[in-house]
Amino acid sequence: METLLTSPTQTVHIGAAHPFVVIGERINPTGRKTMAEQIAAGDFRQVLADAHAQVTAGAQMLDVNAGIPMVDEPALLAEIVRLVQQAVPVPLSIDSSVVAALEAGLKAYRGKALVNSVTGEDERLEAVLPLVKQYHAAVIGIANDQSGISHDPEVRFAVAKKIVARAESYGIAREDVIIDPLAMPVGAVPASGATLFQITRRIREELGVNTTCGASNISFGLPNRPGLNATFIAMAMAAGMTCAILNPLKEETTNAIRAANLLLGHDENAQTWIRFNRPQQEETAGAAPGGARPRRPRPGSASE
Amino acid sequence: METLLTSPTQTVHIGAAHPFVVIGERINPTGRKTMAEQIAAGDFRQVLADAHAQVTAGAQMLDVNAGIPMVDEPALLAEIVRLVQQAVPVPLSIDSSVVAALEAGLKAYRGKALVNSVTGEDERLEAVLPLVKQYHAAVIGIANDQSGISHDPEVRFAVAKKIVARAESYGIAREDVIIDPLAMPVGAVPASGATLFQITRRIREELGVNTTCGASNISFGLPNRPGLNATFIAMAMAAGMTCAILNPLKEETTNAIRAANLLLGHDENAQTWIRFNRPQQEETAGAAPGGARPRRPRPGSASE
Repeated sequence: METLLTSPTQTVHIGAAHPFVVIGERINPTGRKTMAEQIAAGDFRQVLADAHAQVTAGAQMLDVNAGIPMVDEPALLAEIVRLVQQAVPVPLSIDSSVVAALEAGLKAYRGKALVNSVTGEDERLEAVLPLVKQYHAAVIGIANDQSGISHDPEVRFAVAKKIVARAESYGIAREDVIIDPLAMPVGAVPASGATLFQITRRIREELGVNTTCGASNISFGLPNRPGLNATFIAMAMAAGMTCAILNPLKEETTNAIRAANLLLGHDENAQTWIRFNRPQQEETAGAAPGGARPRRPRPGSASE
Repeated sequence: METLLTSPTQTVHIGAAHPFVVIGERINPTGRKTMAEQIAAGDFRQVLADAHAQVTAGAQMLDVNAGIPMVDEPALLAEIVRLVQQAVPVPLSIDSSVVAALEAGLKAYRGKALVNSVTGEDERLEAVLPLVKQYHAAVIGIANDQSGISHDPEVRFAVAKKIVARAESYGIAREDVIIDPLAMPVGAVPASGATLFQITRRIREELGVNTTCGASNISFGLPNRPGLNATFIAMAMAAGMTCAILNPLKEETTNAIRAANLLLGHDENAQTWIRFNRPQQEETAGAAPGGARPRRPRPGSASE
């Protein structure tokens, strides 16, 4: 099953027959004090810098969020959507928990957007799905509801199934629903990785729809987050996940995604892998003989 | 299902309920000219250095191979088994394509060894399985036979099934058969990763036995082999693989295995991950603030 998202100039295909789609997570003021202050003051320089940096690093889509307390979130999100679309050519994921903000973002958006997100409660579904239909968008359905995030895979699967069925009842094709089975921090919830892989596989096999997650969440509170995220996303891809919202500036993570694309048969002649992992002349010259360690420099990786 | 291997002082448990078992690949003269010359001359210094280095790096078992043209392989393999068992406490995998060498190695071994390996041809099964039974060993069954390595997952699965059944007919418990579904170089066989993940999962689900592979083979001919191997092994673990023969001296690979163990629920309180990935004082001081940003809380999520 294939989800298509578009901008005025680009189409992104999400599905098992395609390379994994990276949705850049950085345009989000949550936990980013400077960005939040800038956005609240109508200064979008950091937003645009992050848009360019993430697309340069290989993000095929960008998530945009304007969730700042005490601001006019609908107006701000619409403005960010407009500015980011002027700056970069990739399709966007419009991210808010406020329905009016989603609507304002969709109104401003040119192309077929991804709505991030709807949860399984009836009142959320009834508020968000008509907008998804009206604006010919696709939507991320999060596998939790009024009872919270269940640790029982059966319950989360049932919520996913409900969201897909409800979307169809609104005339939204099931290929336009992407389920987020929820990556909980493995440091706090030891079974969260295994549970996510299991639900992801089951959603693919039984519902046939695409899956995604906010990948960075898995490593919350643990050291070497890029390393843990890299392994996590490759394992999620092995389980059938087809896109994720993550930080593309972490080279360790994006290179693991390149490796996993190759290992899943989505990198013809290993072209992409070889291009990004070719030993560099100057490094080879300076490397210890026999070490033959063709690592690339890691832009954006804070540690190591 | 659980495979137990022993040395006089250690027991290794291979199975889905345990952390992944790393079998060190380095004691193998194939492609290592200096080691081959040393071994042929009765000099085992490199062998013992590799034994110590691999165990220090975290290998829970070691593979030992003495496959050098024009030598008395049975005598050499038996000698290596004796010396390595004197030097390090871990159980061994006795590796040869020569039946007499396997027998000599088994005779010299103290404990319950892993025999590496038997393939699916009748004459190989009839030669190797009685030895496995006689010496109370376990055995790696490789999923190919006289027709070669099939690209058809059905054929490879059928060979695996035949090996398990034949072993049982010799009185070898199925938990003492570990199937190697064959990691072919992904640079030459584009489907090899996806095929391996699929067969691995099916063997686990339908036969219930453990699986292994020679992991380094997957990256043959490609740049950044440790990086590709690291992602590969994590994906194989997601598919249900429980041990592999690989180079534990490559920190990128062993750290991906630690991450995958954590994500599969085999690292209580993330103790091992934290021990090996704890930020060092000077790194923390230099790290950019905001690197460890939590994902925003989802609407209706437990974190709100």
